[in-house]
Amino acid sequence: MKSRAFAFATRSPSDVAELARMLDDNVFAASDVVCILGKTEGNGGRNDFTRELAMTALEQLFAPRLGCRPEQVQERVIFSFSGGTEGVVSPHMLVLVKEGEPASVAHVSQKRLAVGIGRTRDFAPHEIGTMAQIQETARAIQTIVASLQVDDLADVHLVQMKGAIPHFSHEQAEAARKAGKPFTCDMVYSRAASALGTALALDEVAAEALSDQVVCQDYSLYSSVASCSAKPGLAHTEILLFANSRYWDGDLEIQHGVLQDILDVHGIHQVAAKLGMALEVPPNPAHLARLVGVFAKSEADASGQIRGQRHTMWSDDDISDTRYSRCVLSSVLASVLGTTRVYVSTRAEHHGPPGGGPLAILARCASSS
Amino acid sequence: MKSRAFAFATRSPSDVAELARMLDDNVFAASDVVCILGKTEGNGGRNDFTRELAMTALEQLFAPRLGCRPEQVQERVIFSFSGGTEGVVSPHMLVLVKEGEPASVAHVSQKRLAVGIGRTRDFAPHEIGTMAQIQETARAIQTIVASLQVDDLADVHLVQMKGAIPHFSHEQAEAARKAGKPFTCDMVYSRAASALGTALALDEVAAEALSDQVVCQDYSLYSSVASCSAKPGLAHTEILLFANSRYWDGDLEIQHGVLQDILDVHGIHQVAAKLGMALEVPPNPAHLARLVGVFAKSEADASGQIRGQRHTMWSDDDISDTRYSRCVLSSVLASVLGTTRVYVSTRAEHHGPPGGGPLAILARCASSS
Amino acid sequence: MKSRAFAFATRSPSDVAELARMLDDNVFAASDVVCILGKTEGNGGRNDFTRELAMTALEQLFAPRLGCRPEQVQERVIFSFSGGTEGVVSPHMLVLVKEGEPASVAHVSQKRLAVGIGRTRDFAPHEIGTMAQIQETARAIQTIVASLQVDDLADVHLVQMKGAIPHFSHEQAEAARKAGKPFTCDMVYSRAASALGTALALDEVAAEALSDQVVCQDYSLYSSVASCSAKPGLAHTEILLFANSRYWDGDLEIQHGVLQDILDVHGIHQVAAKLGMALEVPPNPAHLARLVGVFAKSEADASGQIRGQRHTMWSDDDISDTRYSRCVLSSVLASVLGTTRVYVSTRAEHHGPPGGGPLAILARCASSS
Amino acid sequence: MKSRAFAFATRSPSDVAELARMLDDNVFAASDVVCILGKTEGNGGRNDFTRELAMTALEQLFAPRLGCRPEQVQERVIFSFSGGTEGVVSPHMLVLVKEGEPASVAHVSQKRLAVGIGRTRDFAPHEIGTMAQIQETARAIQTIVASLQVDDLADVHLVQMKGAIPHFSHEQAEAARKAGKPFTCDMVYSRAASALGTALALDEVAAEALSDQVVCQDYSLYSSVASCSAKPGLAHTEILLFANSRYWDGDLEIQHGVLQDILDVHGIHQVAAKLGMALEVPPNPAHLARLVGVFAKSEADASGQIRGQRHTMWSDDDISDTRYSRCVLSSVLASVLGTTRVYVSTRAEHHGPPGGGPLAILARCASSS
Repeated sequence: MKSRAFAFATRSPSDVAELARMLDDNVFAASDVVCILGKTEGNGGRNDFTRELAMTALEQLFAPRLGCRPEQVQERVIFSFSGGTEGVVSPHMLVLVKEGEPASVAHVSQKRLAVGIGRTRDFAPHEIGTMAQIQETARAIQTIVASLQVDDLADVHLVQMKGAIPHFSHEQAEAARKAGKPFTCDMVYSRAASALGTALALDEVAAEALSDQVVCQDYSLYSSVASCSAKPGLAHTEILLFANSRYWDGDLEIQHGVLQDILDVHGIHQVAAKLGMALEVPPNPAHLARLVGVFAKSEADASGQIRGQRHTMWSDDDISDTRYSRCVLSSVLASVLGTTRVYVSTRAEHHGPPGGGPLAILARCASSS
Repeated sequence: MKSRAFAFATRSPSDVAELARMLDDNVFAASDVVCILGKTEGNGGRNDFTRELAMTALEQLFAPRLGCRPEQVQERVIFSFSGGTEGVVSPHMLVLVKEGEPASVAHVSQKRLAVGIGRTRDFAPHEIGTMAQIQETARAIQTIVASLQVDDLADVHLVQMKGAIPHFSHEQAEAARKAGKPFTCDMVYSRAASALGTALALDEVAAEALSDQVVCQDYSLYSSVASCSAKPGLAHTEILLFANSRYWDGDLEIQHGVLQDILDVHGIHQVAAKLGMALEVPPNPAHLARLVGVFAKSEADASGQIRGQRHTMWSDDDISDTRYSRCVLSSVLASVLGTTRVYVSTRAEHHGPPGGGPLAILARCASSS
Repeated sequence: MKSRAFAFATRSPSDVAELARMLDDNVFAASDVVCILGKTEGNGGRNDFTRELAMTALEQLFAPRLGCRPEQVQERVIFSFSGGTEGVVSPHMLVLVKEGEPASVAHVSQKRLAVGIGRTRDFAPHEIGTMAQIQETARAIQTIVASLQVDDLADVHLVQMKGAIPHFSHEQAEAARKAGKPFTCDMVYSRAASALGTALALDEVAAEALSDQVVCQDYSLYSSVASCSAKPGLAHTEILLFANSRYWDGDLEIQHGVLQDILDVHGIHQVAAKLGMALEVPPNPAHLARLVGVFAKSEADASGQIRGQRHTMWSDDDISDTRYSRCVLSSVLASVLGTTRVYVSTRAEHHGPPGGGPLAILARCASSS
Repeated sequence: MKSRAFAFATRSPSDVAELARMLDDNVFAASDVVCILGKTEGNGGRNDFTRELAMTALEQLFAPRLGCRPEQVQERVIFSFSGGTEGVVSPHMLVLVKEGEPASVAHVSQKRLAVGIGRTRDFAPHEIGTMAQIQETARAIQTIVASLQVDDLADVHLVQMKGAIPHFSHEQAEAARKAGKPFTCDMVYSRAASALGTALALDEVAAEALSDQVVCQDYSLYSSVASCSAKPGLAHTEILLFANSRYWDGDLEIQHGVLQDILDVHGIHQVAAKLGMALEVPPNPAHLARLVGVFAKSEADASGQIRGQRHTMWSDDDISDTRYSRCVLSSVLASVLGTTRVYVSTRAEHHGPPGGGPLAILARCASSS
């Protein structure tokens, strides 16, 4: 089994011309595509329709090539799009491909990128933001990990999730409120429980430390590899998992770390170091050539301060804190790494320490660059 | 003659409590204050009233201490406020103070910060954006340089200007248009001619290379030390000039350089190096302790690309390119230097190369830190 | 006792030149000014500094004329500024003046505008949003009503309040949460309780119908005359009350009604009719000449629908629902009444029915126009 | 030949479920659809991708039903989408259908809606904003008018155009500039010339009054029926024309008028009166039931004033004047007519008087309602 990755710039959210060309040229087969991630030039909020536009274009592209209807494409390929290319971020897509058969024999030392997908069972509204969601998310993650033949939980470097927010009626919500157990079925709690589920699955947090009460309360509990969004109307959680495995081939590897805040250059250097890159100023073209994907979570520190000084991201009623924090971290990543193709999404409950968040970098192996 | 600098954070645009305390404690005399620069949490645009609010608070503070009416304060102290604290920028003010008498004897080698102020004559509307503005601006700058006993034009590191945009009637504009010489009396052209006037004064551009035709056309001509805004209704240009001089005392020095783009970490390192700081990751607290002021100009590259990749700062109708470019460069400066007290203003016609701009850093001397 | 009103346009938030001229010309005395209301061109949100700028300018204007320090002016004159002049709204101020002595004899039938001010006691954080705030607000309102010699509670037409949101520590909030009585000390609950306090004071809602539980839950309970904002850090609630009284003189009267939604032209006509104006298309100049002040509360219907059709005010992450709803209602009022000097503020918990809100119109008396 | 119209609400830009249902139920044939107009919930600006998303969904819907590829659909059906549902506007679509054969005999008096489409030839960049564009646009309009068997130019009530802005290179633009004839190939000039072309075609402006010089200069010259946008990259202008004709059948008629400003309720009444509706307060349900489409152009008065009072739509750097003016006029139309399904697009060069613009109302005939 071999993983391959192809990144390309887009001229608009619906621009899949470069991908169409690659498919037409048989660079890889449509049926081998595992997932497509991308940044689109929307606001990243509720009225960001650029993600849907990108996914519609991809559905049109893949449907005839997969021999299915457009609405069936997402059962075969996971799409993970994030709106918001604030500042210097260049809209782009990244295609991950899986070729060949599972290996029966492992490499002795070499670990290569392994990509797996999965999903949780459907959730009831009252489960969101509770141990029920955390435990089922952990179970689903462990299933994927096992399927990828990953030796060590420390080899899992990125768990990208689109979390459940099942529909519920006003009556259901009222009934729950009156019963003294109000629903926490919203984006904040769904992201939080997805992240804690990852932490549980990967032994980042001990099972005994977790309870309904800690969700969105005890932020000292967090995952360093989760990257969670949540989608109203989705009954289950979609999971995309990146690890390194001795059973996989290809020229890709992934590493991760935690940024202490959205200005944490040192944290970026540390992740790069794990990939064997000693970052330089200006960026070394050899390092730049190895970069395939940069994934991070940003947030405007809820304390209203960063490095002991006041920031104004939370008190601005004209521009959302989400747009500011993405812009800040994207700018820092781009300046340090030398690429504007960075995938930063925002709000990071239980993703890294307060004000900080996980960073994962996908790169071509040093030997192959 | 000795220069001193005092920086403080503000909790809102009108927060001058810390400055009031310093004046009450006789840390320095109100009559010795040359200028106050600050970043306020507005949008930096036409409807940004935070600058006026800050200046009103300062007028109220200084009027009784200078024995004048509030509306006379700005004849005695230059205020240079820039709106827009996008992302991590911390609203703050920086007070520059000049104490003592001019020195008659120069130091042998030590150069210290010298600060001077001046203004041009009043301009007619048809002069803005032309050689008339360029030449008069250059003359006014040279007068300040001479008054500061600066040895070498290369010792001038920052020329901060609020440029003229004299009032004119619709009839005047129509008459000019019909005469085939339409006015270029606007913010863009005023900033451009102020910058070119600086370049002329400081021998950055040869006099022969300049003409009415090159303004806003030939961007290979630029200043590396100018930082120009423009204010509708202002008939003259206000000038604030920072240099190093062997005739001045104190513990401050200033250096500058040019950033090639708003991600140019290398350019930041080069300016810091001139101050004897070899920047480290994470930032060295000793370096951080020396920083007093960081001044830069940002712009969203007009080509629509940065480092060969598309950016979306110009095609976003929800958020202005000015807010994005300030956010990007401020984030990069803060991440590299370790401080969120950065003064980045935007739009940079003939300020550094297209997409880039000047950077000046004011610091305590290495020996005194 | 005689009430007078003076409205003027402003060219910017700090423009008080017209008011200065009136005071200099002795049109009225500074010491007779009861309150100044105004709309300023900010965003109406947390980072709207235009209100502070306007009030600072007024403090500077009044301090020497009242013989007090600027920071004491607001102990003598109530300022009620609302940010947000979306769409066609013209920034303006309205000065209300009270001259002469209380009358001992009432007019037989003629009722004229009476203006009174007052305040509640200071509140503890746990009282906000509860019966404690409702009852104390009602008490303070009744005190003002009595002082104005108002015959009938139905003669009270507008109660403008700046509501308390006392400071509290994180520890206090946590303690309350753990005790099972989490604070509701925020803008939403403070506005809600102020409105219900008005309803209680004016017999709009029966005392028996009120309890802690109905606040922000049972929106069938509301006031038709309240107009409440809330200010973080304010320990008490400031109250400004407009009524008609047989003991007052002048040429002003006020009436009110409820708009069922922000498109309710019929509701506007009904309020105008109480002032003897049968509104016409296009607006009758005689009616327009009588208008002095138009005060309304707007809100984007929380159901996401208006008149059975979907609106998008709540799902837009670029522009706040508050700006949209103000723009809509201001546009409708301006189109129907013929004036763009309308004072619409937003969010209207327990102010009129859901999606609607109170409207009060202050006008010169028909006989005197 | 018979015209029919079907309007429906959308739950998002890509929601065509209601239209699919109508097609599946054979309410009308896909091949009889002439055009689909709609308002989508974007910002109406350069980065508004909601229009593309709506049109993509429609292409998917129609392609199999028309037996063509998705990218060919727009050769068969004109799509005219306008972004921006500010305030109360309800996102919706309106489908116009043409059934049967052209009539050889006219009705004696009854005129019914006739809808026609056409296009200009391709334009060269130097033609945009000049007489060349004006004359060719007029020619194309006259061709459509003739094809619809319209008796009288006064029977044309709405000419909706997507105007040409052909591509050009930087070199072409520079060459034109140096030759003293700079291109006016932009949105403003393209819309302006489209509108003047309409005025010329329909005898609203005399041919002698027109020249290259009047474009965007003499705003006393305008059309009362044009509604023009412009699309970068489009080489020709697409035209959609609505008239009343004695040769057409159906239950629809259209009328138009000019609004003097965006608060002009009287102007709305006048257009309604032409349809036999004497508008009432509150709106008469019988009138409301007749309304099918409301089309208007809005603009923030460039003088900075409306009805003699200052507005702030042009000085707000947080929200575009286009969003404000659409919000204002949409609110007024909705409040007067009683429907939130209004199609207001913005910027109105040579469309009605400065600050005002055309209004057209499509309604079911009084007799048939």
